[in-house]
Amino acid sequence: MNDGKTWSGRFNEPVSELVKKYTGSVGFDKRLAKWDIQGSLAHAQMLCEAGVLSAEDLAAIRKGMAGIIAEIESGQMTWSLDWEDVHMNIERRLTDKIGDAGKRLHTGRSRNDQVATDIRLWLRDQITDIQSLICDLQSALIDLAEQNAEAVMPGFTHLQVAQPVSFGHHMLAYVEMFGRDFERMADCRRRVNRMPLGAAALAGTTFPIRRETTAALLGFEAICQNSLDAVSDRDFAVEFTAAAGLVMVHLSRLSEELIVWMSPRFGFIDIADRFCTGSSIMPQKKNPDVPELVRGKSGRVIGHLTALMLLMKSQPLAYNKDNQEDKEPLFDTADTLIDTLRIYADMMRGVTVKPENMRAAVMQGFATATDLADYLVKKGMPFRDSHEVVALAVRHADGQGVDLSGLPLDVLQGFSDLVGEDVYEVLTPEGSLNARNHLGGTAPEQVRRQVKRWRGLLADIQNAG
Amino acid sequence: MNDGKTWSGRFNEPVSELVKKYTGSVGFDKRLAKWDIQGSLAHAQMLCEAGVLSAEDLAAIRKGMAGIIAEIESGQMTWSLDWEDVHMNIERRLTDKIGDAGKRLHTGRSRNDQVATDIRLWLRDQITDIQSLICDLQSALIDLAEQNAEAVMPGFTHLQVAQPVSFGHHMLAYVEMFGRDFERMADCRRRVNRMPLGAAALAGTTFPIRRETTAALLGFEAICQNSLDAVSDRDFAVEFTAAAGLVMVHLSRLSEELIVWMSPRFGFIDIADRFCTGSSIMPQKKNPDVPELVRGKSGRVIGHLTALMLLMKSQPLAYNKDNQEDKEPLFDTADTLIDTLRIYADMMRGVTVKPENMRAAVMQGFATATDLADYLVKKGMPFRDSHEVVALAVRHADGQGVDLSGLPLDVLQGFSDLVGEDVYEVLTPEGSLNARNHLGGTAPEQVRRQVKRWRGLLADIQNAG
Amino acid sequence: MNDGKTWSGRFNEPVSELVKKYTGSVGFDKRLAKWDIQGSLAHAQMLCEAGVLSAEDLAAIRKGMAGIIAEIESGQMTWSLDWEDVHMNIERRLTDKIGDAGKRLHTGRSRNDQVATDIRLWLRDQITDIQSLICDLQSALIDLAEQNAEAVMPGFTHLQVAQPVSFGHHMLAYVEMFGRDFERMADCRRRVNRMPLGAAALAGTTFPIRRETTAALLGFEAICQNSLDAVSDRDFAVEFTAAAGLVMVHLSRLSEELIVWMSPRFGFIDIADRFCTGSSIMPQKKNPDVPELVRGKSGRVIGHLTALMLLMKSQPLAYNKDNQEDKEPLFDTADTLIDTLRIYADMMRGVTVKPENMRAAVMQGFATATDLADYLVKKGMPFRDSHEVVALAVRHADGQGVDLSGLPLDVLQGFSDLVGEDVYEVLTPEGSLNARNHLGGTAPEQVRRQVKRWRGLLADIQNAG
Amino acid sequence: MNDGKTWSGRFNEPVSELVKKYTGSVGFDKRLAKWDIQGSLAHAQMLCEAGVLSAEDLAAIRKGMAGIIAEIESGQMTWSLDWEDVHMNIERRLTDKIGDAGKRLHTGRSRNDQVATDIRLWLRDQITDIQSLICDLQSALIDLAEQNAEAVMPGFTHLQVAQPVSFGHHMLAYVEMFGRDFERMADCRRRVNRMPLGAAALAGTTFPIRRETTAALLGFEAICQNSLDAVSDRDFAVEFTAAAGLVMVHLSRLSEELIVWMSPRFGFIDIADRFCTGSSIMPQKKNPDVPELVRGKSGRVIGHLTALMLLMKSQPLAYNKDNQEDKEPLFDTADTLIDTLRIYADMMRGVTVKPENMRAAVMQGFATATDLADYLVKKGMPFRDSHEVVALAVRHADGQGVDLSGLPLDVLQGFSDLVGEDVYEVLTPEGSLNARNHLGGTAPEQVRRQVKRWRGLLADIQNAG
Repeated sequence: MNDGKTWSGRFNEPVSELVKKYTGSVGFDKRLAKWDIQGSLAHAQMLCEAGVLSAEDLAAIRKGMAGIIAEIESGQMTWSLDWEDVHMNIERRLTDKIGDAGKRLHTGRSRNDQVATDIRLWLRDQITDIQSLICDLQSALIDLAEQNAEAVMPGFTHLQVAQPVSFGHHMLAYVEMFGRDFERMADCRRRVNRMPLGAAALAGTTFPIRRETTAALLGFEAICQNSLDAVSDRDFAVEFTAAAGLVMVHLSRLSEELIVWMSPRFGFIDIADRFCTGSSIMPQKKNPDVPELVRGKSGRVIGHLTALMLLMKSQPLAYNKDNQEDKEPLFDTADTLIDTLRIYADMMRGVTVKPENMRAAVMQGFATATDLADYLVKKGMPFRDSHEVVALAVRHADGQGVDLSGLPLDVLQGFSDLVGEDVYEVLTPEGSLNARNHLGGTAPEQVRRQVKRWRGLLADIQNAG
Repeated sequence: MNDGKTWSGRFNEPVSELVKKYTGSVGFDKRLAKWDIQGSLAHAQMLCEAGVLSAEDLAAIRKGMAGIIAEIESGQMTWSLDWEDVHMNIERRLTDKIGDAGKRLHTGRSRNDQVATDIRLWLRDQITDIQSLICDLQSALIDLAEQNAEAVMPGFTHLQVAQPVSFGHHMLAYVEMFGRDFERMADCRRRVNRMPLGAAALAGTTFPIRRETTAALLGFEAICQNSLDAVSDRDFAVEFTAAAGLVMVHLSRLSEELIVWMSPRFGFIDIADRFCTGSSIMPQKKNPDVPELVRGKSGRVIGHLTALMLLMKSQPLAYNKDNQEDKEPLFDTADTLIDTLRIYADMMRGVTVKPENMRAAVMQGFATATDLADYLVKKGMPFRDSHEVVALAVRHADGQGVDLSGLPLDVLQGFSDLVGEDVYEVLTPEGSLNARNHLGGTAPEQVRRQVKRWRGLLADIQNAG
Repeated sequence: MNDGKTWSGRFNEPVSELVKKYTGSVGFDKRLAKWDIQGSLAHAQMLCEAGVLSAEDLAAIRKGMAGIIAEIESGQMTWSLDWEDVHMNIERRLTDKIGDAGKRLHTGRSRNDQVATDIRLWLRDQITDIQSLICDLQSALIDLAEQNAEAVMPGFTHLQVAQPVSFGHHMLAYVEMFGRDFERMADCRRRVNRMPLGAAALAGTTFPIRRETTAALLGFEAICQNSLDAVSDRDFAVEFTAAAGLVMVHLSRLSEELIVWMSPRFGFIDIADRFCTGSSIMPQKKNPDVPELVRGKSGRVIGHLTALMLLMKSQPLAYNKDNQEDKEPLFDTADTLIDTLRIYADMMRGVTVKPENMRAAVMQGFATATDLADYLVKKGMPFRDSHEVVALAVRHADGQGVDLSGLPLDVLQGFSDLVGEDVYEVLTPEGSLNARNHLGGTAPEQVRRQVKRWRGLLADIQNAG
Repeated sequence: MNDGKTWSGRFNEPVSELVKKYTGSVGFDKRLAKWDIQGSLAHAQMLCEAGVLSAEDLAAIRKGMAGIIAEIESGQMTWSLDWEDVHMNIERRLTDKIGDAGKRLHTGRSRNDQVATDIRLWLRDQITDIQSLICDLQSALIDLAEQNAEAVMPGFTHLQVAQPVSFGHHMLAYVEMFGRDFERMADCRRRVNRMPLGAAALAGTTFPIRRETTAALLGFEAICQNSLDAVSDRDFAVEFTAAAGLVMVHLSRLSEELIVWMSPRFGFIDIADRFCTGSSIMPQKKNPDVPELVRGKSGRVIGHLTALMLLMKSQPLAYNKDNQEDKEPLFDTADTLIDTLRIYADMMRGVTVKPENMRAAVMQGFATATDLADYLVKKGMPFRDSHEVVALAVRHADGQGVDLSGLPLDVLQGFSDLVGEDVYEVLTPEGSLNARNHLGGTAPEQVRRQVKRWRGLLADIQNAG
């Protein structure tokens, strides 16, 4: 950072323009500016308290940084590849403004611990946003669940009709998934929220720094205990991306279902027009673009996870330039997740449920066959035998083109003399639903209990937040 | 499960042999037998307490299962693809032995919740083993760190000499990484340790089951609150594999370093012969096979992570046969991780450190240049200016073929008149090391403090375990 | 390979049992035995022709190898981890049988070029099998296409009804995909079919070897031109796995469609019972297990691709033990692909098409709206305007609950006075189909032309094979 | 595309702003503009020849498009999210300029076949550039190889000294790898260079299109034979990314070596200052940033491959919005590869080789042990026995701290009486190098032959290009 032409007096020639472009990161890391300044101000204050920096210098740095923030916000800051990255651009600008005090700011730190601190501060804020968006999406799903606690739909396994379930129950399955995602984000956040600053280049510094002070100023929960680890660790980025990947997997699964349900052969739901697009050639089309794009974007995040794992797996300690490649996948992961969660909560509030189509589908797949088998077991038949008896009854009904409930009593009794008149009660979808009335079961009563439980949990989170 | 030829009376023809082989899982899922039986026994006891199963039936099931365990342990159990998977093989054998009671065992459950329970029980045990192996590896590294707290090695960034560090400090960087891995395994274990049993096929059951009872019998910390989610959720497998992937990344990084350090040009360490192999053609070779293989095996686990993410991302609820593909990657991930951790702790205890070669390397890269810069800052020069002054001094020394400490005082003073005779104290590797004496720094005193801190943490874990 | 205890006289202690197990590969690489022996016999013959090996030694080696082949085939060969891998097990057994001649076999080669040769010979054979299985699957699809050239189904975009297509046309889309897969396999095979033998450990050998001779004996098309590259190159494994991954992607896409089509709401097809399984709890179930498992197995192969890329990306030249990890993913990729292709061709021959359900679905989504727009364009309206006019007509028909063809002429004319009585001809699915009668279009005539074209291409391949 | 507020008259409400931003692609697909217009002009000309479009309309379209090109080049074109993507932005602008003729352009096509055509045209050009950059990099490596044909360096296996190799030979190993990359790009290009246009939305069109005409105008080698496949196929993108991934793997491997070689303990090479950067804290540092970043960027491309595979694996035919996610990974893959190849060729021309350090390293690892073993074999000892004899000699020399060539004759004869005075000739690095003088071997003569062969191959490519 001498004349801006070479790296230092040690170098014989300046970096080539091609190399500057290839190795420069300011194009994408300038978004860290706010957090970089936040970190610098805390570092400067600590240096002052430790007697390394004078009060005058600190005041000058504060004033200079305030000016830079204003320049950034008003779009007047000039970012230059000549100063490679966000850190050096800001430091250079600071020195332009306040002179020697600016040159003293970098005392006792290095870009290695500085960038690690910036990313953690930034990611901490993203996770907070993500957690709040997860709760909002859960809230939309819970509302849908409550409204449709009694709506009977075919529960599928293998995309074949298995047993009747409540549509509300189905929505709550996703609430559970997002609940785990919230937990994982919270766990990850604890590991993000540790301070590398003070590790300097890799070995710590000879200045009498006070890391506890800086950590307190920046709101870090803990301090990285080993300087080599502090500058080389990107675990938190990998862990975050893996957790984000799982959120995207869940959203992709829900999307897969929305797309199938909106297909005319199913017709279980409709998605509001404002989330759909048409066709440039087929005038009748209304396409569920958003869920399809979400399904596609899950690949993107999982690809970033592969990239980050791969990035780290063979690096010796401590810092290598490879690490610069952590930023773009991480930024894009957070952006993708935040945009997707935001639009998804909105979209779920625009879903119209069509219970009559769902119920029609239930009647098409012998959905209450298990109920008949259970009925026989309760009358004394071993389960494996009842399973076989019902299979034969299904085969007969299938041949007749009717549901099990459409078979006359004497025909049913022909399969087992344990069958009585009460059998028809268990053969309705509603009877089947209500009979599964235990913790985790699909009975509407259970759905309403879970709705209440989740509303309580979300309220607790909000109160704590 | 009627005559063993067709699936049920509903089917017109038996499954083809090719299909049986393609879809059968007993070849690999029979390793779950112990946990499958554990789950079945708890399920049967609960059914009995709930009045669904008679005491006689329960007794018969217990006796039958004891017999099957004995048969498995003695290698007499016959596993057949005709019975597809571990669950049906065991149930079939049970029914052979005890008749109708065996046919009653499957009341109120399905293979969907059964297999999810089995895998969680199995994985819970694997994680416990992994956590203990992580601690053992940390313990080996801590011993190395303590023995080499004073050993000076070049700290590298970009594989260029950066600053002197303590070899013990370097070892402790990995202790930190494995510490985070331990945390992640613990976090994951909490989410593994939830019980899906009671979800039945997907919607719960019509029998009056008592899920709290089964959970208590099996030691689960919590109960899956939604039956659809319970049978379709494989988050825990993905999360475990991601956490395992990070452990492998750390082991791969350490392996990369061991390989470089053992290369004759470095010669920093030697690995005991029993961990190395030779060459079929070159008689002089002694190859660090184990770390190389570990580096390679990290790819394997990360590949499994990709596979599992991909497996889940487009599946509609609830259960699909796709999920059968979760087992082999998960089994192989746990096996690979356990084998690797075990051999690694052993191998680290067989590492010989060669401090004289490390110290020689420190002297080859102007490792104390930063110390000189810091020295000038403390005398009043702004950091950015001192950085430039030292760069010129380095260039001069490089031209002379000497270290900075090899330059005469008047030459050093030629670069800055702030230089005094005390400068030579800061230019030795040992001086540099000792000067970084703050939390997280590389000073031997800090290394010993961290050794003590970690020994305490490991003791706490052991006492809690 | 001295006393079997240590690696060579250079080593002070034997390899530990744990390490033997961890680093040994004979458990999985013994499947290469046939190709290893094939390579050894060619190498020995070349050495003899080059005057390095005596005719007596060659004869002894041939006899010894014949004995070993017999032992392997009869299951009498003992594979031991003491001899690490397939190469050393076979060489050891040979030396047991024929003495010094066996010890001379390894002259002028190394395990590094030997294993690279073995894998290439093995993979070459697998690719040949795969290509033949691809053709067989194509053949099954072509038959289906021919039988269903006239069957109208809804062509979907976004899983919404777009335009009518021929089911035969849909099948032929997959024939095209598999055609590209065949091409990629052929391209890959050329790069597999190059001989590394002669590279020895990494630098070539001092013996007067004749690589052209060995290559001719083994049927290699070319010879690796650089010894370092020859032993370190695993490009062919990555390229094969990527090509295999694409085949699996195509099979997964087809599986996704079969599963949806077999769902009762669609009911477009049925899959023969022998490819389906039932449920342990729901007696009515018939599940499309095979396509679901195929969908799942695509993740497996893509995971192997990730693993192999990762394996290679940071290895310095020439051979590193990391490379041992290439085998299991490669073996499993080939096995998975071969098993899947075999079962898939079989299964497609067991698919029953239900044209009436397909046609009913066509009528449910305004599939001929584009035909109406084209009709108006042909009467002179710009396309963008006709697109808008038809959109309004669709909205009106949707409100009435009828198809466009169900709107009276005057109503249609209300949207545009360009509409005449001939409009109803273009509004039938069959009219729509037949109107797309150009190269690549869905008209039954085109389907039959493509069937003929593909039959010719497959016959050419068979004649060439 | 009616009033720009809703998708068509079929929609009740416009797309929300959030959705527009989420689903819009013009931000990244506008880079396809040049190829989109190229495709549109050919389409219009074909429509005119087929009598669907009047000559006046064609003339108007040509003039309008020329204006748009000018606007794009001068930066005056306004891209708006209101028109979603590059296709609709251009069509809209065209209609603004020329009225009804613009509305007629989209006759007989759809955005589905249009975008597939655009990407293929674009990718075809990128591959051409990539192939040329590969040749340039090979050319730089060949020059280095020629200059260093006689330079002896340690050939490593397991990063342990194995046998002496020529540095030129080592460079040529990479020339071979990039040669295969070139082949794969050529193979991929053939499959890219097929025309989807004419497939329309998914089923072809009712207009009398002439696909051969359009293909000839656009320089396509072949025409996609199935309309469903034509719009849904992204094989070419996956195949290209896999091939690009392998190039990056090769570059990453070379980078790994450059980094190790430039580390002071090795000191085999130096990289020109203009490709290196310094440190913000350590004034002495000169870091090989470019190769490190290349190593990191390999992860990026492999991540994109994962993303693309995942994107495709579960999509039913024909077009789904998921596919929009193909563009960013594909664009970034091509950009990364092109930038990296360009800088790499440049950088290799800035590499300084230090033969004296390489030779010193050769003497440190008993590199000629295999030569001694071969020597004994040639005197009649079986290879396996000579291997063991030499291992003992190495152990002895190691104990004495000398190379094998440093042992007196009588000591060597103590290991085998086959040793004669001529043994010292084979124990020099140069003797070892020259003795491997066969096709693919490391002898300088072979290196020069390969240099000549490759120069010929590159000249052929250039003449053909």
